[in-house]
Amino acid sequence: MGLFTKDIQTFEDLFLHQLQDIYYAEKQIAKALPKMAEKSGNPQLAQAFEGHLGESQGQIDRLEKVFAQLGETPKGVTCPAIDGIIKEANEVSGEIADKAVLDAALVAAGQAVEHYEITRYGTLISWAKQLGRTDAVSLLEATLAEEKAADVRLTKLAESRINKAAEAV
Amino acid sequence: MGLFTKDIQTFEDLFLHQLQDIYYAEKQIAKALPKMAEKSGNPQLAQAFEGHLGESQGQIDRLEKVFAQLGETPKGVTCPAIDGIIKEANEVSGEIADKAVLDAALVAAGQAVEHYEITRYGTLISWAKQLGRTDAVSLLEATLAEEKAADVRLTKLAESRINKAAEAV
Repeated sequence: MGLFTKDIQTFEDLFLHQLQDIYYAEKQIAKALPKMAEKSGNPQLAQAFEGHLGESQGQIDRLEKVFAQLGETPKGVTCPAIDGIIKEANEVSGEIADKAVLDAALVAAGQAVEHYEITRYGTLISWAKQLGRTDAVSLLEATLAEEKAADVRLTKLAESRINKAAEAV
Repeated sequence: MGLFTKDIQTFEDLFLHQLQDIYYAEKQIAKALPKMAEKSGNPQLAQAFEGHLGESQGQIDRLEKVFAQLGETPKGVTCPAIDGIIKEANEVSGEIADKAVLDAALVAAGQAVEHYEITRYGTLISWAKQLGRTDAVSLLEATLAEEKAADVRLTKLAESRINKAAEAV
């Protein structure tokens, strides 16, 4: 982004900017997920993070298709929000000695990531609809459905196992 | 947080840490909302941000009650996630010249804030239930309901007015 000019002139520019933001975010998430899986004590939690990594790669492919629909080259812009969410996850997990308590914190961190994606994809879908970009809407909706499902999976895992194990410490 | 010790030993410690994180976040949000209202071109959007400021102050009061239930003094811990979300909102709005396009970006920023709060309160409720802290659960659930309603209000405002005005630029 330029420091001395206003780079976003139109609603289309804003849509493109948000696309670049989530493209950067998805790539950071794809780097963070294997580390989260590695830290997980519960094998089902590790598996949830690994499974979502596969999905994230598909989501990056979909974003690249949306860039192509706009006639743009895929490019990310630094997203301080996802950087902050991942930094916070690392800081908190660095403070936790016990594996079961760490698992509860990892679920929370994973859900913070999911909710960031849910809000951004929700916005992109709403903007794409307004802009008449129905081709982009269906791609973005497929991703949003995956994000929501990943969030529900983490809630179920937390409430069925992870939280009980953390409390038993 | 200590750099050389593991400060979070138990699930209760993790709950307290998350409470301190959202307490800090709520205070940052209360500082950001008047600035977002001031930047808004659409009076209903300005009103939505101002209305949510009133709610945020009530949410801070509820958190202080939860601290009291735990026998703890209210205290915040730096939350890089909300700092990143607010930083990103400021960066993007600094890039936008047109008022109607800026309004669309402000809605998106407001919804990113709401979703951060939704995920954190959701986690706190789930942990409070596991810890048998039913007194905290009802306070946290009241706040979560407000956050979800604020998110829905922003969606409705965006889809009824803001996005159309932004596209007309």
